[in-house]
Amino acid sequence: MAEFDLVIRNGTIVTASDTYRADIGIRDGRIVALAEKLGPASEEIDASDRLVLPGGVDSHCHIDECMGPAYTADTFETATRSAAAGGTTTVISFTGQPEAGTVAESIAGSHAKAEGSALVDYSFHVIVHDTSAEGLAALEQAIADGHRSLKIFMTYGNLALGDAEILRVLTLARRAGALVTVHAENNAAIVHLTAALEQAGLTAMRYHARAKPIAVEREACHRMITLAEIADVPVQIFHVSGEESAAEVRRAQARGVKIFAETCPQYLFLTEDDLDRPGFEGAKYLCSPAPRTHADQEALWKHLRLGTLGVISSDHAATRFDDPQGKKRAGENASFAQVPNGVPGLAARLPLLFSEGVNKGRIDLNTFVALTATNPAKLFGLSPRKGTIAIGADADLVLWDRERKVTLTSALMQHAVDYTPYEGMELTGWPVMTLSRGQIVAAEGEIRGMAGHGRFLPRGPYDYILPARYPGAT
Amino acid sequence: MAEFDLVIRNGTIVTASDTYRADIGIRDGRIVALAEKLGPASEEIDASDRLVLPGGVDSHCHIDECMGPAYTADTFETATRSAAAGGTTTVISFTGQPEAGTVAESIAGSHAKAEGSALVDYSFHVIVHDTSAEGLAALEQAIADGHRSLKIFMTYGNLALGDAEILRVLTLARRAGALVTVHAENNAAIVHLTAALEQAGLTAMRYHARAKPIAVEREACHRMITLAEIADVPVQIFHVSGEESAAEVRRAQARGVKIFAETCPQYLFLTEDDLDRPGFEGAKYLCSPAPRTHADQEALWKHLRLGTLGVISSDHAATRFDDPQGKKRAGENASFAQVPNGVPGLAARLPLLFSEGVNKGRIDLNTFVALTATNPAKLFGLSPRKGTIAIGADADLVLWDRERKVTLTSALMQHAVDYTPYEGMELTGWPVMTLSRGQIVAAEGEIRGMAGHGRFLPRGPYDYILPARYPGAT
Amino acid sequence: MAEFDLVIRNGTIVTASDTYRADIGIRDGRIVALAEKLGPASEEIDASDRLVLPGGVDSHCHIDECMGPAYTADTFETATRSAAAGGTTTVISFTGQPEAGTVAESIAGSHAKAEGSALVDYSFHVIVHDTSAEGLAALEQAIADGHRSLKIFMTYGNLALGDAEILRVLTLARRAGALVTVHAENNAAIVHLTAALEQAGLTAMRYHARAKPIAVEREACHRMITLAEIADVPVQIFHVSGEESAAEVRRAQARGVKIFAETCPQYLFLTEDDLDRPGFEGAKYLCSPAPRTHADQEALWKHLRLGTLGVISSDHAATRFDDPQGKKRAGENASFAQVPNGVPGLAARLPLLFSEGVNKGRIDLNTFVALTATNPAKLFGLSPRKGTIAIGADADLVLWDRERKVTLTSALMQHAVDYTPYEGMELTGWPVMTLSRGQIVAAEGEIRGMAGHGRFLPRGPYDYILPARYPGAT
Amino acid sequence: MAEFDLVIRNGTIVTASDTYRADIGIRDGRIVALAEKLGPASEEIDASDRLVLPGGVDSHCHIDECMGPAYTADTFETATRSAAAGGTTTVISFTGQPEAGTVAESIAGSHAKAEGSALVDYSFHVIVHDTSAEGLAALEQAIADGHRSLKIFMTYGNLALGDAEILRVLTLARRAGALVTVHAENNAAIVHLTAALEQAGLTAMRYHARAKPIAVEREACHRMITLAEIADVPVQIFHVSGEESAAEVRRAQARGVKIFAETCPQYLFLTEDDLDRPGFEGAKYLCSPAPRTHADQEALWKHLRLGTLGVISSDHAATRFDDPQGKKRAGENASFAQVPNGVPGLAARLPLLFSEGVNKGRIDLNTFVALTATNPAKLFGLSPRKGTIAIGADADLVLWDRERKVTLTSALMQHAVDYTPYEGMELTGWPVMTLSRGQIVAAEGEIRGMAGHGRFLPRGPYDYILPARYPGAT
Repeated sequence: MAEFDLVIRNGTIVTASDTYRADIGIRDGRIVALAEKLGPASEEIDASDRLVLPGGVDSHCHIDECMGPAYTADTFETATRSAAAGGTTTVISFTGQPEAGTVAESIAGSHAKAEGSALVDYSFHVIVHDTSAEGLAALEQAIADGHRSLKIFMTYGNLALGDAEILRVLTLARRAGALVTVHAENNAAIVHLTAALEQAGLTAMRYHARAKPIAVEREACHRMITLAEIADVPVQIFHVSGEESAAEVRRAQARGVKIFAETCPQYLFLTEDDLDRPGFEGAKYLCSPAPRTHADQEALWKHLRLGTLGVISSDHAATRFDDPQGKKRAGENASFAQVPNGVPGLAARLPLLFSEGVNKGRIDLNTFVALTATNPAKLFGLSPRKGTIAIGADADLVLWDRERKVTLTSALMQHAVDYTPYEGMELTGWPVMTLSRGQIVAAEGEIRGMAGHGRFLPRGPYDYILPARYPGAT
Repeated sequence: MAEFDLVIRNGTIVTASDTYRADIGIRDGRIVALAEKLGPASEEIDASDRLVLPGGVDSHCHIDECMGPAYTADTFETATRSAAAGGTTTVISFTGQPEAGTVAESIAGSHAKAEGSALVDYSFHVIVHDTSAEGLAALEQAIADGHRSLKIFMTYGNLALGDAEILRVLTLARRAGALVTVHAENNAAIVHLTAALEQAGLTAMRYHARAKPIAVEREACHRMITLAEIADVPVQIFHVSGEESAAEVRRAQARGVKIFAETCPQYLFLTEDDLDRPGFEGAKYLCSPAPRTHADQEALWKHLRLGTLGVISSDHAATRFDDPQGKKRAGENASFAQVPNGVPGLAARLPLLFSEGVNKGRIDLNTFVALTATNPAKLFGLSPRKGTIAIGADADLVLWDRERKVTLTSALMQHAVDYTPYEGMELTGWPVMTLSRGQIVAAEGEIRGMAGHGRFLPRGPYDYILPARYPGAT
Repeated sequence: MAEFDLVIRNGTIVTASDTYRADIGIRDGRIVALAEKLGPASEEIDASDRLVLPGGVDSHCHIDECMGPAYTADTFETATRSAAAGGTTTVISFTGQPEAGTVAESIAGSHAKAEGSALVDYSFHVIVHDTSAEGLAALEQAIADGHRSLKIFMTYGNLALGDAEILRVLTLARRAGALVTVHAENNAAIVHLTAALEQAGLTAMRYHARAKPIAVEREACHRMITLAEIADVPVQIFHVSGEESAAEVRRAQARGVKIFAETCPQYLFLTEDDLDRPGFEGAKYLCSPAPRTHADQEALWKHLRLGTLGVISSDHAATRFDDPQGKKRAGENASFAQVPNGVPGLAARLPLLFSEGVNKGRIDLNTFVALTATNPAKLFGLSPRKGTIAIGADADLVLWDRERKVTLTSALMQHAVDYTPYEGMELTGWPVMTLSRGQIVAAEGEIRGMAGHGRFLPRGPYDYILPARYPGAT
Repeated sequence: MAEFDLVIRNGTIVTASDTYRADIGIRDGRIVALAEKLGPASEEIDASDRLVLPGGVDSHCHIDECMGPAYTADTFETATRSAAAGGTTTVISFTGQPEAGTVAESIAGSHAKAEGSALVDYSFHVIVHDTSAEGLAALEQAIADGHRSLKIFMTYGNLALGDAEILRVLTLARRAGALVTVHAENNAAIVHLTAALEQAGLTAMRYHARAKPIAVEREACHRMITLAEIADVPVQIFHVSGEESAAEVRRAQARGVKIFAETCPQYLFLTEDDLDRPGFEGAKYLCSPAPRTHADQEALWKHLRLGTLGVISSDHAATRFDDPQGKKRAGENASFAQVPNGVPGLAARLPLLFSEGVNKGRIDLNTFVALTATNPAKLFGLSPRKGTIAIGADADLVLWDRERKVTLTSALMQHAVDYTPYEGMELTGWPVMTLSRGQIVAAEGEIRGMAGHGRFLPRGPYDYILPARYPGAT
């Protein structure tokens, strides 16, 4: 009997800190050996001209989820097909939506949707909308059951929590050992500006960016950071969209506050000008926070290099464009404020970053791995099982051809929606094979994974001194 | 015949990004396998209760070197004994001192001193003092021969280079692919303040700190950074001593300049008050830049966490205290300006950082490895051979007992000087075994390495887009 | 008939920009001539050894006002006696308290209290607590009637406005031409911390400072500034208490936002240690925001010099100490949260600033005049009638003996309360005579003014490009 | 006999802090009365529709001076005609040029040139080029004789002082009570970049801006500030040209250092694009520092409002354009490095600022007076005699028609050169009459002053706590 189920031979292995050539020996879905030369295996893959990276960890994506009036187009099956196609092997989606009943009911429902459907492993952030004593007790139980991160909104109608509610959530997070994540935009200001714009008849898609200028995000970031300081608990700020917000994060880190933050491809590759495309086309690019300017894009690259921003997630929130249940649900003449928010990005995230980040010299390969796999795994309690290539870790791996030239199309994304905001981009570098726990789930554009292979990842208590190196961590 | 010369079993391996349990298989001095369980070896070490870390890389230490009027006490043999005792397996010392003749002569002399003496591997920075066309040509040859880093002084008498000379050196570094390192203090201001203090009869050791306040360092940092921006070439700033200088580095990094920086234990653990100890005792703590305040110490820890500072070196520059050739060479009533600069630190560096950094929760273990081994190895072109635990790397390893309690004494340091500035500190955590290329060079306080085992490490062209993740790097 | 009612001869006149020697000719309460030598007058005052300054403008004081559960001890008569004693000739108090009925009723009541009582001129800020359409209409009428400044609270129970309400007020202010002033502290955080402290039995006066750390003020400042940016309207931030809040103001000014700010003597001369005086004594120093640290005091002096802070007001809010209606209303064992907020300062403001500011070299004389008279007069639409010495201005003047040594006592303050927080301070420099519209209202400690002399000062539309030089103004 | 030699009736008087309507009574060249209505005078001027401002103080202009290889075109007569035409009544030029012999000889020569020629009053900064003991002694004598400000260069060939020399000068300034002014650019970097550009054949005028990018100015500003901190002496930084340098000044002010700074019209109204005009035309705009970008212009306006920059001078340094002794002295194909630096601006300074600053709402009228008259007068020891309208001050006055529309032409400038860089600009607001010590020197474009009316202004010891309000001052 062969010592290994699978050996990947002769690839160039990249972790968040190292780059070296070795064989990888896999047994029972885990990495059990790394060596210059390993013995025979039941199955072998030649990776001679390939980079072998840890599978991507996408710590922020919306799957099979009610989003206000709209509903995401992707099921766990289509979303994780898309993930696999793009080199991502772990997704963290959301549960706890108010429409789904009690926290317990919602969680049960989310698990039911994912089980048997997912091609890769998954976990959940719990959305907080009820901060009554009962609501907090239900959250505490959810945390104890391995849902170790909470999501709060500072905007979006009745989802928006006030400062007093936020402080209750932060206090719970500290006691129960969960990490709080936040959508930070000032709700009152957005409501005020939206009303003013609509009253003036300024309802085209481009006014979405004027209804939520970066100042409303900067304000909410600073407020959230202050509340976190007062409660003495770390916070992860989602989807930082430009310089002013990133600067708030950096100021906080500089005075010693444990604030973590991510950005997403839409803020690195889109601008508010995309909202101004002819006709209703701008709706394809409508997401919140709004895309900003080219200067903001450059600032975000800078903050990725500096470590201010430690994670790149997709914030995949996909609704179909040409669909009465999707972007057009309120009609093509609807105000920007009636259009479902969100863009797809699960499959595009890694190829975009690899091509425009690594291959254009903005970040190096190890930083790519850190931002897209290692850091989110550590931050959300998935390390050392996910996010790296090391003895004992799950054999979630991606083989990259760093020179492959690919024109991005929606079809390549393998998702359930009818567009990608990055249609037509010419990329260099592509994930040619994706493995989840030692099984090939995608190869050369073909999905080979099986619905149901993916499993729920319960997470242990959040370690306040982060268990390993994360930019800005104590 | 056993597959491995040596297997280290069951240790907890720590790299700059990962922590996991595995066996390490070593052959011909290199790491050839990592696995849950390796087969038999000629020799085995049980590391069950041990952390196994990459051996320390000390990228800034002065060995067997003329330092102005004084001479370091340590030979390559004693210095590398001390290194081994403290868990350090690579040292970068200096060559090119003006007293040693031409650059070529000096390099030949330095190699002669090190060969046959060193217990661990070594390399050299080349001090620049002659920027004439001939001087630059000699440097270019030295760089081509694998001495890929230059050291410039902005102070210290005739060693100090002016701005025009610095620009010539930076231009050479860009063309020839070398990294410039710098001692950044404003010479004219130090001369001015020293003269004023001496004229006023203020010559006690504590005035050393007033003769070179942090403003002179902040100024030189900003000037050096500006010259580096103009020449478009990275620079490593040595021994950042406090907040104001670190802030200059951080400002530069934030505007996208490739500036790297280190600090040293003397700035994390000593203050200017130590210079004011009774009698001549303060001379033991006299080094340049001067130790600062407790607030500066806290600031430096902050900048280590933020990534502003990416390396901790020792700046080991040891002269004996009670010795007419050492600190007392000008007598016990000498002005501070007559006392040889420098403190020993080769052996103390890692234990101090481990105890006060890792075990007190200021930095995590992976960051410890990054700061003391991985980052300096990458920055100075020694990666992937040194600075990490990975297939193909040299088997430079240190076994740590993270709970061992040790009282620091000069004797434990195994150096050639008669004191340590950290005498009596109670530490938790200790390097109990050090291996260089698979050979045990120190174990439980006993030096087992042999003079001559250590070899020169020539370094390849400096990669302007750094080959791997370094805080602040593109 | 003499050309002048009064001539003040030979004094050294000081304005916000100039210092020169001249005679001042006064007729009908106004300054009508300035000259090297003026002709005879009905009355003459020799000011040969005196500085002659514009009377102080105190743009933030609470007189005859309900403050939550407590009531200020001072009537308009006692408050303006105190003002006159301390060199202040214009006070801006508050109207619109919710306890006083509708806005119109409250304004009528405030006018009734002041008329016939005040010894010096006065005006009112209108407190905003009702932002319904009716409430805003009432405010618009009040503004049109010459009450050109609004006061909003971000904390203090039901006085606290939420962000949506603030945006409505700012929008009104922009349309109607009023200046919004604000008490900026995060209400939810204070409630949260107060509850936590009280639950832990930590109710001594010193915990007042822990229930409202500077972070809650910094947060509210930044939020208010952001809302002001969005509404595109200037705001005056009241009682900035330390570095972090001042830094927010400065950041905003640097990016071009029209944010003005003041500080008060209690933040320059008291610290949180005063709250920790033995027994119930600390209650004498309890005000909001809380006094901070010595480092914050130094930072505030710095920001006064830099122009970040352009006004020093008293925030006089005086309740008696040894009185069941005053500080002891909830008993001497009451929690800090039950003690009426506020300290007296109307009379102490100018002597403290003169002695510790001007005579100790922290600010110059012209800056003293700017901060205490000219800037508040300009900011609140009282210029050119008040706040300077110029042809046409009211003859509100103060003669200062810049070398007089005085020990501050509560009796000297001439107020209705039984203490001053500055009791026993040894000052150099004293206002020896105060004139309001040409009438002597105080001289050498004796009050000579008559109740009823003071008149209401209606104010014209706020000029968005400030009519004259104010630090940070467009 | 009339009480006054001259009364200016009914004008609107503007000072750095006040705006009011009054008559001005003048006797013996000084202001002796300000009143609502003054009695008869020998001569009267009706200023009913006019603003009456203090005459401009231009604290940085080069008159009848050798500037390296070139010579300024203006004599004291033509320069002060130009000053008078533009509303400026005090000029501070330079003496001490190395070409003029010893310091004493140079000063004697400068006085000889000015006496009998100047139409308005003048003073001198002394250029420092010899810091030997003899040189410093000569400077000390010059200071004692009323030349209370020194000028040092950090660039320009042999004029450039090194850090040690600068420290000697600062030490002298502190002891002798003089203010040091500085041209701050890094000499070595400019030489390096110029050589590189010329070697590459890049010699067109536009490369002037690339040979001295703002980084070289930022560096020199920070270095000068640090040296000033070490010597504990205030410094005035000349001609700040953009954001990065202004930010250095602001950082220093924020940490409490007494750093003052000016900018000039060329940095508010020109950009580096002007250097790129066709043919040799760009030479008209060539000055040092180089004009920057539009973003820098906006930043400078911001810093003027914030008080970072407290003075606007002309740095008038005029050479003829179409002249073999002027801009074309090295021919029209000369490298940028061979073209004489400097642009004319004595007459344009105030009209440009008034039109584009005051009338476009960027600064208010009082700030205009502060920046162009009051602040420079205070900073350079000319207050209270110059720079304001107050009893006892010299009757240096300018009547402005704030609505007059004028197209700027070189002829209107009344200077000795053949161009103005602002040719054709359409301005609103114009100085229609200028008086020096009560004498009309220019009126409606006609020069009425007499050569020889202008007198030397000796200056008293510099007051380290500035005698009156200056932004950033203690």
